Amino acid sequence: MKKVAIIMGSDSDLKVVEKAITTLKDYGVETEVHIYSAHRTPIEAKEFTASARDNGIGVIIAAAGKAAHLAGAIAANTTLPVIGIPIKASALEGIDALLSTVQMPAGIPVATVAIDGAENAALLAIQILAVEDKTLAEKLQMARDSKKSKILEKDKEINAKYK
Amino acid sequence: MKKVAIIMGSDSDLKVVEKAITTLKDYGVETEVHIYSAHRTPIEAKEFTASARDNGIGVIIAAAGKAAHLAGAIAANTTLPVIGIPIKASALEGIDALLSTVQMPAGIPVATVAIDGAENAALLAIQILAVEDKTLAEKLQMARDSKKSKILEKDKEINAKYK
Amino acid sequence: MKKVAIIMGSDSDLKVVEKAITTLKDYGVETEVHIYSAHRTPIEAKEFTASARDNGIGVIIAAAGKAAHLAGAIAANTTLPVIGIPIKASALEGIDALLSTVQMPAGIPVATVAIDGAENAALLAIQILAVEDKTLAEKLQMARDSKKSKILEKDKEINAKYK
Amino acid sequence: MKKVAIIMGSDSDLKVVEKAITTLKDYGVETEVHIYSAHRTPIEAKEFTASARDNGIGVIIAAAGKAAHLAGAIAANTTLPVIGIPIKASALEGIDALLSTVQMPAGIPVATVAIDGAENAALLAIQILAVEDKTLAEKLQMARDSKKSKILEKDKEINAKYK
Amino acid sequence: MKKVAIIMGSDSDLKVVEKAITTLKDYGVETEVHIYSAHRTPIEAKEFTASARDNGIGVIIAAAGKAAHLAGAIAANTTLPVIGIPIKASALEGIDALLSTVQMPAGIPVATVAIDGAENAALLAIQILAVEDKTLAEKLQMARDSKKSKILEKDKEINAKYK
Amino acid sequence: MKKVAIIMGSDSDLKVVEKAITTLKDYGVETEVHIYSAHRTPIEAKEFTASARDNGIGVIIAAAGKAAHLAGAIAANTTLPVIGIPIKASALEGIDALLSTVQMPAGIPVATVAIDGAENAALLAIQILAVEDKTLAEKLQMARDSKKSKILEKDKEINAKYK
Amino acid sequence: MKKVAIIMGSDSDLKVVEKAITTLKDYGVETEVHIYSAHRTPIEAKEFTASARDNGIGVIIAAAGKAAHLAGAIAANTTLPVIGIPIKASALEGIDALLSTVQMPAGIPVATVAIDGAENAALLAIQILAVEDKTLAEKLQMARDSKKSKILEKDKEINAKYK
Amino acid sequence: MKKVAIIMGSDSDLKVVEKAITTLKDYGVETEVHIYSAHRTPIEAKEFTASARDNGIGVIIAAAGKAAHLAGAIAANTTLPVIGIPIKASALEGIDALLSTVQMPAGIPVATVAIDGAENAALLAIQILAVEDKTLAEKLQMARDSKKSKILEKDKEINAKYK
Repeated sequence: MKKVAIIMGSDSDLKVVEKAITTLKDYGVETEVHIYSAHRTPIEAKEFTASARDNGIGVIIAAAGKAAHLAGAIAANTTLPVIGIPIKASALEGIDALLSTVQMPAGIPVATVAIDGAENAALLAIQILAVEDKTLAEKLQMARDSKKSKILEKDKEINAKYK
Repeated sequence: MKKVAIIMGSDSDLKVVEKAITTLKDYGVETEVHIYSAHRTPIEAKEFTASARDNGIGVIIAAAGKAAHLAGAIAANTTLPVIGIPIKASALEGIDALLSTVQMPAGIPVATVAIDGAENAALLAIQILAVEDKTLAEKLQMARDSKKSKILEKDKEINAKYK
Repeated sequence: MKKVAIIMGSDSDLKVVEKAITTLKDYGVETEVHIYSAHRTPIEAKEFTASARDNGIGVIIAAAGKAAHLAGAIAANTTLPVIGIPIKASALEGIDALLSTVQMPAGIPVATVAIDGAENAALLAIQILAVEDKTLAEKLQMARDSKKSKILEKDKEINAKYK
Repeated sequence: MKKVAIIMGSDSDLKVVEKAITTLKDYGVETEVHIYSAHRTPIEAKEFTASARDNGIGVIIAAAGKAAHLAGAIAANTTLPVIGIPIKASALEGIDALLSTVQMPAGIPVATVAIDGAENAALLAIQILAVEDKTLAEKLQMARDSKKSKILEKDKEINAKYK
Repeated sequence: MKKVAIIMGSDSDLKVVEKAITTLKDYGVETEVHIYSAHRTPIEAKEFTASARDNGIGVIIAAAGKAAHLAGAIAANTTLPVIGIPIKASALEGIDALLSTVQMPAGIPVATVAIDGAENAALLAIQILAVEDKTLAEKLQMARDSKKSKILEKDKEINAKYK
Repeated sequence: MKKVAIIMGSDSDLKVVEKAITTLKDYGVETEVHIYSAHRTPIEAKEFTASARDNGIGVIIAAAGKAAHLAGAIAANTTLPVIGIPIKASALEGIDALLSTVQMPAGIPVATVAIDGAENAALLAIQILAVEDKTLAEKLQMARDSKKSKILEKDKEINAKYK
Repeated sequence: MKKVAIIMGSDSDLKVVEKAITTLKDYGVETEVHIYSAHRTPIEAKEFTASARDNGIGVIIAAAGKAAHLAGAIAANTTLPVIGIPIKASALEGIDALLSTVQMPAGIPVATVAIDGAENAALLAIQILAVEDKTLAEKLQMARDSKKSKILEKDKEINAKYK
Repeated sequence: MKKVAIIMGSDSDLKVVEKAITTLKDYGVETEVHIYSAHRTPIEAKEFTASARDNGIGVIIAAAGKAAHLAGAIAANTTLPVIGIPIKASALEGIDALLSTVQMPAGIPVATVAIDGAENAALLAIQILAVEDKTLAEKLQMARDSKKSKILEKDKEINAKYK
């Protein structure tokens, strides 16, 4: 199975991104975690990305805040699918990171998830690997079924409570 | 090779979505195009989606405007990767469709591209199929190289023009 | 008298939604409270909604945050009036939930109230039931009169204080 | 059957509001159309509203642009359900009218529909009347079925076209 | 000298509005403070406003949050200048109140100040009274000169500190 | 009677501002029209403003687009009331001009009207002069009554048309 | 004198950027114009930038729309001052490009001008070169004086016209 | 070497601006710090600015919040490069200050950095001085190299931690 690389722009993003790492580990997907900055370590980011496919990586997740160029900069150097997590930083509630990540020009897509949506970034990466991997697809379905059961239980409780 | 399904919420979205269809055809990816509405044909949308994986579909692209629930509604019924195209409709410049598509709750990701970003939606779908398909990956790389050459030609022209 | 159903997308919405429940109880309106998610329990949400009219429900209130599809998804499966409460979640101050709830396409209306406007959602539901129910209409008027008296008392106090 | 009143803030709103009038007529709902301004004819607006319930009106639709106070001003003078249509005027794409209409304080709800959402305002009014009117409920369902059929036909066409 | 009336939509606005009251008192301007709601006490608001000019009031300041209709509703019932203070309430950072206050239709102006700008509302009211009142105009100038001196003192301190 | 000065930042603003000029002339208020830029003719803007009160001016209206500093720059040099008209320029629908005009710091108020709200700026200026001028106040009331009559006539027409 | 490089992300930006080129030529500043894309020609963009200082370039202007990463990507590879022009593309009125350009992380500044502000980008570049170049500084002052004269002429005309 | 002047609109801005002061000191750039307000001390602001070039100043940094006119007002009085820092004040997350600073009209550029971007403002000022100062340029490059090393160290740690 292909690996998933997770790249964050700064170690301050880790508190959000950690949920992506644990989600991938829960599914038994091998991960490789890096801190690379689109602006402060552009060469390292580029080198890692350009050789990612050859190194057994199937999907790259990139998380950054403010003028979040990281996902786009990575997508420019690979034809692997790149998932962008816009991080909510100190001002503007993350709308700057969302627009900087999602409004990519034609030719270089970034698969953008919600602001601070680290869990969904991981699930999307797993869904991509599961296109050709039945076992993984079944695990995803089982997790959904389990989540559904939990909601239905909560539904029963709340329905009873307010009867 | 897996097929890509393209679903739009209304036939008025076709003028934007057509670019996704032609891009997929350019890459020789088999496509299946539908008009389903999350709100007006929810059952049909659900049935198509729930059986998509079994019908040989690998990725689903969904395009909708305004309170764009389509991509999310589809993502709720499959573990295949779902790509959302927010469509710019009459008011609010498409920001409503963007937020309705991208701000998905944990558990059900939608891979969102730019407002009216139909070409990138298609390219992202191809990138996903290319994770395990070397030929497709090479085609993607060749297209990038060709696009790059065109930009560099234009660069030469413009550089000369303003010398 | 018809019942009012209150559906929330997640139990984390309860702290806002509770005000709707207590308001309905204050007016003696029978309520039925559920947790259903447009994306994680779409089938249950659909089944509940499709049979709501036959089960004596007159109005459905739906509360959800972020890409708040719940009210729209419910409205797609019933011709009962559906009231949407956009919930302010972690980022974007609730503008995402507001636009996802209110910007519905032609054919499937959602009666949207203010961000976190649970009390008004309940009052709107009561107003709808009161169209054909004189006693309820009188109760609404009495509550308004009482609220008005309280404001006028406060007005007297503050007017005196700053004289 | 109760009547539906439609009030617009200015005759320039008629080009949007007309769709609400024709939709109500299509369903055989008696309507009463007025131009009242929250700011320029506040007394007339108030008098009409305060006596609306006694005059056989069941629902009031109010349409206004910019600082759209009309729906709220009407809602302040009646306990009938009031539906607000935010109109997109010259600047700000209608976001001003949307926020002015939907962000009502606790106690005075306005059932807000999409910017320029006149058809949905009419449908919502009909849904409210249909809570206690089976024939109307059936008509609503039939219209949905018919709309659904049209979408499915278009789906067939487009599916065939791009095969 | 004419009086200045200050009206707030809710007693929760007092913590912001108090600065307007104290500023007016500092200038020796007689004030009259009220809590009136555009929606919950529309009649009282109207009656106070319609007789304001005859009661010796020269300017009215109105403060409200969310769908802030208060200033507009008051302006509709008088030809006195009405100053609107948009109050930042729980969500949307006050942009809803700002747009609801400032985007008034032609014919009924509201002199809008900054979100939570209570001090400036008071100063603007004083400036209006000072058009025909030399003493007041001189007080305004003196206050500016004094404020200027304080800034220049601070400038000296900070300039020295970082030398 | 005091005069009203109208200052615009650029002659391209004239197409909006002209409505303010004609409105003031309709009321017989003497006006003085200037083009001064906060940034390109700061000295002239300052000199005009600082001597405005002595030159018989009672109110200053300032119109500017984009980073609309003009009204604030003028307000900094006079204690006369300054009315700001945010002009909708090429991008951002005028929200930049609105925020640059209205969000003034404590001490220097600008009475802001709607984006492109030239007529209301003039009416507000007249209202300010009318605080101490009964004839002008009566003219304002008469204009309102006349506008009201026109709306009520239109109301009759439209009410009859859709009966 | 150092040269100014102007880089645009796409030849469709030329219609805006041309004003920067002509402004620089008016001042006799040598320019070098390129089309490089942060995403489609990242290597060429990087190489040009990394050697810019050695090639006699003093300032780099970068123009791009949507998720405008170009200025930031260039700034990452040089310590020369980089000026960013956010271009208004098809949707969102250019706010996406503005935020993507200006909200840079600490360490890599981009000197951002207004949306489509090509003339100001050129003037800022000239101001930077003029820090150590008296002749250029004098030209800048002369241009300002000339612009000021034109405004004052227009002021006279308009002042006379509306007397 | 030329000096850098730092001007803030209020002493409450110091907690953000201090980072600019310390950054400049770290690079050995002589600084001069002032509190001047565009609106409360316009004359002092103007006088300082107009003589700045003659006083050995090469770049001016201006920081202000809300309707942040300070940078523009300073830029109007000098042809030196002026860098604007939009400060996030109590409401609107700083978007008001950003738009008021960056959306300058043609002729008077302000080099705008991110909301609260004091460090980048200082670095940009240093980059401007470094156009003609090799030693400073080398210091900038060394700082970048050092920052890069720190990120790469963190990358190693985090990469090892999640292996």
